[in-house]
Amino acid sequence: MSAITAMQALVADDMDAVNSTILKRMDSPVVLIPELAGHLVNSGGKRLRPMLTLASAQLAGYTGNKHIGLATAVEFIHTATLLHDDVVDGSALRRGKKPANLIWGNQATVLVGDFLFSRAFELMVESDSLRVLKILAGTSAVIAEGEVLQLTIANDLSTGEDKYLQVITAKTAVLFAAACEVSGVVAGDNPEVSSALDAYGRNLGIAFQLVDDALDYASQRAAMGKEVGDDFREGKITLPVILAFRRGDDDERAFWKQTMQRLKQDDGDLEKAIALLHKHDTLSDTIERARHYGAMAKDALAIFKDSEAKSAMMGIVDFCISRSY
Amino acid sequence: MSAITAMQALVADDMDAVNSTILKRMDSPVVLIPELAGHLVNSGGKRLRPMLTLASAQLAGYTGNKHIGLATAVEFIHTATLLHDDVVDGSALRRGKKPANLIWGNQATVLVGDFLFSRAFELMVESDSLRVLKILAGTSAVIAEGEVLQLTIANDLSTGEDKYLQVITAKTAVLFAAACEVSGVVAGDNPEVSSALDAYGRNLGIAFQLVDDALDYASQRAAMGKEVGDDFREGKITLPVILAFRRGDDDERAFWKQTMQRLKQDDGDLEKAIALLHKHDTLSDTIERARHYGAMAKDALAIFKDSEAKSAMMGIVDFCISRSY
Repeated sequence: MSAITAMQALVADDMDAVNSTILKRMDSPVVLIPELAGHLVNSGGKRLRPMLTLASAQLAGYTGNKHIGLATAVEFIHTATLLHDDVVDGSALRRGKKPANLIWGNQATVLVGDFLFSRAFELMVESDSLRVLKILAGTSAVIAEGEVLQLTIANDLSTGEDKYLQVITAKTAVLFAAACEVSGVVAGDNPEVSSALDAYGRNLGIAFQLVDDALDYASQRAAMGKEVGDDFREGKITLPVILAFRRGDDDERAFWKQTMQRLKQDDGDLEKAIALLHKHDTLSDTIERARHYGAMAKDALAIFKDSEAKSAMMGIVDFCISRSY
Repeated sequence: MSAITAMQALVADDMDAVNSTILKRMDSPVVLIPELAGHLVNSGGKRLRPMLTLASAQLAGYTGNKHIGLATAVEFIHTATLLHDDVVDGSALRRGKKPANLIWGNQATVLVGDFLFSRAFELMVESDSLRVLKILAGTSAVIAEGEVLQLTIANDLSTGEDKYLQVITAKTAVLFAAACEVSGVVAGDNPEVSSALDAYGRNLGIAFQLVDDALDYASQRAAMGKEVGDDFREGKITLPVILAFRRGDDDERAFWKQTMQRLKQDDGDLEKAIALLHKHDTLSDTIERARHYGAMAKDALAIFKDSEAKSAMMGIVDFCISRSY
């Protein structure tokens, strides 16, 4: 049984409850809301984040039902963020699956994101835990801050690995961390348990984003129906490029500046970029970095005794990293 | 002393504390955030909503300091909503003061809105009151729902007064209501006090928006540095037009359909529209409706004994309505 199948089996019943809650809570008499939200919610994502909340609840020995609403809240925050990411300026259209903003416009997309974010907030309040609310409120602020930071360093090849790590921690890893930690909190908030879950989620989230950024240049991806090179076309500076820019010679740096800073791209430039990443081994080095964070995520779970939940959560780390093959 | 001056004097010390809290909480090491947020925050608004939170706290006899953070949260929610309102599609640019999205782009504007909304959420959590959180979470969801509803009925002249009232209640009045009610809650949550404050805020908010929608066609406004006719140019269906469309003859209805449904507008059309509103007295009738809700707002305060706070809050109702002259 693969790691993802094991995880899906572990949380199957709870995930059914989450899926019902998602449908119930994204509903509205204003029909455009479930229509637009459903476009993304039903697009076949793995629901990795709510899955982590559910597995963490099991690992922490939680027997109540607050984790269902919290897992839904986590998925809504994630979905709202995706909708707001889709908002574009002028000609900067996205490729791949038609994003919501191209069907319904920027305004509706932003507002439905706000709606989901508010519904997430309502679901959290129902947990009756101020500590949960504090964690998730802080998480939302850090995500927004990370997204703005990412925007301000777009097209800037002077961005170093530290700044890049700061961005992916803020925009991705803190939600993974919160998704896990909140289950520890509702399970009694033993500080050792809650902080272990937080550390697991945070490191897993960093590993996940590193792999995601490598996959954006991995041509096998085309076979999976996903676009290759979105980050390149947008001039988004991620680790594979940060490393290749530093390891390259003057000609190569001129190429990166031309294509990613000034966004002057010709046919064949993406292929040339991918060739340079391979030349300097930066895709495999990015995956290597992901393994490092993955190892930390696994070590964070060492305090828990063996269980089906622990195995599934250990397995998901390998799954997130091996997506690259 | 005018009503607004009396209100400002009543809450002067608390408003200083709110202004400091606004500056502190919109700050971030990501400099674009305070820069973009400051553009709107420092644009000289009257801070009517936080003012209502502060006055309501006095009226309810509250002696703690949680109202400062809550007033800041209310202003942040309002500001985030304005930023998200500024997001436009393609050529639909706004007039008047240059909105944030035209300076920094749609994406940054959306993300800074999200940041402020998250900071509002953090401030609310600090009130340590689940009841306050419940009210404000519900409020945010209703605002987003109202904004989407407004979008779906844009350019639709079949919109009736009921639907219009539903929109302005959701997008404007519920935040006024929550701004007042939360002070009642932290002051001890006497149900009679909290629900009186809620009713005051809700009716004041409806009156405020009715007047705002009439003012959009009031030419005296040009003297105040504001644009006249924004709603007309966008085809936003508000009460003055709803009434004029119904009261008009076939030629007039054809004119409204041409200009507001199909958005085919020529020079002189705004002037013609304003002339039709005057012909059918729909601006003064809109103000008349506002007076009705204003009277209900005042009656909601009847349970409180006379005080400086009560006078100021009664006065603000008249102020909101008489802005139209």
